[in-house]
Amino acid sequence: MNDRPTLFPVAEFHGRVEGLQRRLAQAGQDALLLTSAADIFYVTGFLTRFWESPARPWFLLVPAKGAPVAVIPAIGRDLMERTWITDIRMWDAPDPRDDGISLLADAISEHVPPDGLLGVPMGLETSLRMPLADYHRLLDRIAPRRPADATDIIQRVREVKSEAEVDRIRLTCAIASEAFDAVPAIVNRAPTLDAVFRGFQSALLDAGADWVSYTAGAAGAGGYGDVISPAGPQPLSPGDVLMLDTGAVRDGYFCDFDRNFSIGPVADETRQAHDALHAATDRLIDDLRPGMLACDAHRQLCAALELRGMRPGGGRLGHGLGVTLTEWPSFTDHDQTPLVAGMVLTIEPSVVLSSGRILVHEENVVLRPDGPELLSPRAPGEMVEIPL
Amino acid sequence: MNDRPTLFPVAEFHGRVEGLQRRLAQAGQDALLLTSAADIFYVTGFLTRFWESPARPWFLLVPAKGAPVAVIPAIGRDLMERTWITDIRMWDAPDPRDDGISLLADAISEHVPPDGLLGVPMGLETSLRMPLADYHRLLDRIAPRRPADATDIIQRVREVKSEAEVDRIRLTCAIASEAFDAVPAIVNRAPTLDAVFRGFQSALLDAGADWVSYTAGAAGAGGYGDVISPAGPQPLSPGDVLMLDTGAVRDGYFCDFDRNFSIGPVADETRQAHDALHAATDRLIDDLRPGMLACDAHRQLCAALELRGMRPGGGRLGHGLGVTLTEWPSFTDHDQTPLVAGMVLTIEPSVVLSSGRILVHEENVVLRPDGPELLSPRAPGEMVEIPL
Repeated sequence: MNDRPTLFPVAEFHGRVEGLQRRLAQAGQDALLLTSAADIFYVTGFLTRFWESPARPWFLLVPAKGAPVAVIPAIGRDLMERTWITDIRMWDAPDPRDDGISLLADAISEHVPPDGLLGVPMGLETSLRMPLADYHRLLDRIAPRRPADATDIIQRVREVKSEAEVDRIRLTCAIASEAFDAVPAIVNRAPTLDAVFRGFQSALLDAGADWVSYTAGAAGAGGYGDVISPAGPQPLSPGDVLMLDTGAVRDGYFCDFDRNFSIGPVADETRQAHDALHAATDRLIDDLRPGMLACDAHRQLCAALELRGMRPGGGRLGHGLGVTLTEWPSFTDHDQTPLVAGMVLTIEPSVVLSSGRILVHEENVVLRPDGPELLSPRAPGEMVEIPL
Repeated sequence: MNDRPTLFPVAEFHGRVEGLQRRLAQAGQDALLLTSAADIFYVTGFLTRFWESPARPWFLLVPAKGAPVAVIPAIGRDLMERTWITDIRMWDAPDPRDDGISLLADAISEHVPPDGLLGVPMGLETSLRMPLADYHRLLDRIAPRRPADATDIIQRVREVKSEAEVDRIRLTCAIASEAFDAVPAIVNRAPTLDAVFRGFQSALLDAGADWVSYTAGAAGAGGYGDVISPAGPQPLSPGDVLMLDTGAVRDGYFCDFDRNFSIGPVADETRQAHDALHAATDRLIDDLRPGMLACDAHRQLCAALELRGMRPGGGRLGHGLGVTLTEWPSFTDHDQTPLVAGMVLTIEPSVVLSSGRILVHEENVVLRPDGPELLSPRAPGEMVEIPL
């Protein structure tokens, strides 16, 4: 009734399920239980902001053979029926007496033999979006079937994006880029950090974002500190660097890149740091290849920054991106995940300035067999100056 | 560095912790482990949109005696240090070798005796926001200490709002009300559902929302069906009822109410249904009292609608509200939660029309000893008509 076209042809979803089923078979698991918004959207196309309400769990079972089974609150009926999923089982949630557990246990029992394994994502970057007590109740109900870690199964499939997914992320990046172009006007209209955050979110919506799941940023003299706080009414002043970072969403796909702006002329140290970040990013765009490890990308970014006399920032310097704001792998010194063609990645070097403040630069790319292709329109080599 | 004032005086947080500690002692639990954005914000004031990234877990331990311990990724240092929490332990996350588990196990071991209980929310409307495998690793590390269900401990405290919290929610409601006033102009500017969704989100930001975590709505002839789908490019037409519903956020507190608009003149059946919804809501605002159960509110709403010949909608007809879009209890026919003074609640009756479509009406109230006080400015008795 709302005329929203299906996001992808059914073949796209079939391909995703085949990937999962191949890996389930290899791992000797009989079905995969998914509970998160991202995983369920990925397999079904079921897209809603209703996940914001913690009241109800949602379940998707992907058997090693056969069609997926959605076990969901009845409020999701219309939307799930418009996806390609046909086996949809529902209950009136929330129901403290049995919040879908019997229905789910029955579906599992149909697809997993008594001595079989139920795959559940349990590793890094996953969490089980259902009450823990209900999970234990479920395990009791399906015994002697046992749970097994399925993190690799979902992550190895999700991390390789199809061309249709790359197109979606490229579109979200273009939307964010248009909003970044509006920032000087937004700052001039009301030069306080909270007003800029609001104006930037509106600009993202104006440019075509469906919603804005994430906006971060900061401003400070020459650089900034904390980049995860909400904005306060701090006035912007000449000499400040303003950074804005966004995870806007279009059709369920995120972008995640930032831009730095100088309020008034750029200070020398800031310019040098920005040059180094820009050059290190260019260098990695030239050099990144499938077969390298996530930690290799980290090492190359650090080396490029140090070559210019800069101190690289702590934490990760890039990560995956797609149906969530951040995905694995992480560009850290210890992440051994092999990079493969089709991964969409952020390249996110940061440097620590003499003041202890930082500058962060970020682009989004898809890794091709011969190297990265930019999805975010490349940031200008010189930081954009906003006269105040 | 961003000059955002602390949301509440420290005494507010002390009161919250005392409430949790009193209940921990009553339950014989030695500490409470919190992992969700809402629970950690509630106890500490730590507010960030960084939770959108699934990469990192965050932990807060509230011992039955003494000060809470934050065990968090180092990227949260500045922000957590600006809260009232002083015992902050950090690691460089994400770290696949040990993602905070050793640090957390140590903190638990300090506060929970070997034969003691670690409270973990496990019940309805909760989920454990950390990898399940890490939770099992944690339990191994802290054995013989055992986990126990702490759902009641956190929910019975969070559900009773302080006056400071009520003020926050009232402010968010006022922001949303201002945005609802802008809807006729938004519709006239671009009368398609997706453009209206975008314009409404911008209006919420313009009115002072920090961000818009939830927007839902629908439009259809005389009423609507599915209310959880994203908006498509469907044009609005005379005879349509347009419903918009929002969970906007200001200072971490949500509103959750909707408004219905008629595109052109209101059809008779729609008018009667809207009248009935409005009257049923008035009636419950008159009659609701502490000591009633959640299911009593459901029964009264249904009775008031049926008295006017209407068929009440399925699902719940109201729920709690606060630091998440929806909180317990649920106005269903089986929720036995006692209503208490200080609860902030949505009153959300719906009716099914002869077409099978529905109309939903929603207000936000705080329950006082002598009945509800409105937090959302009351919807007009007549549906607002938008000429097209």
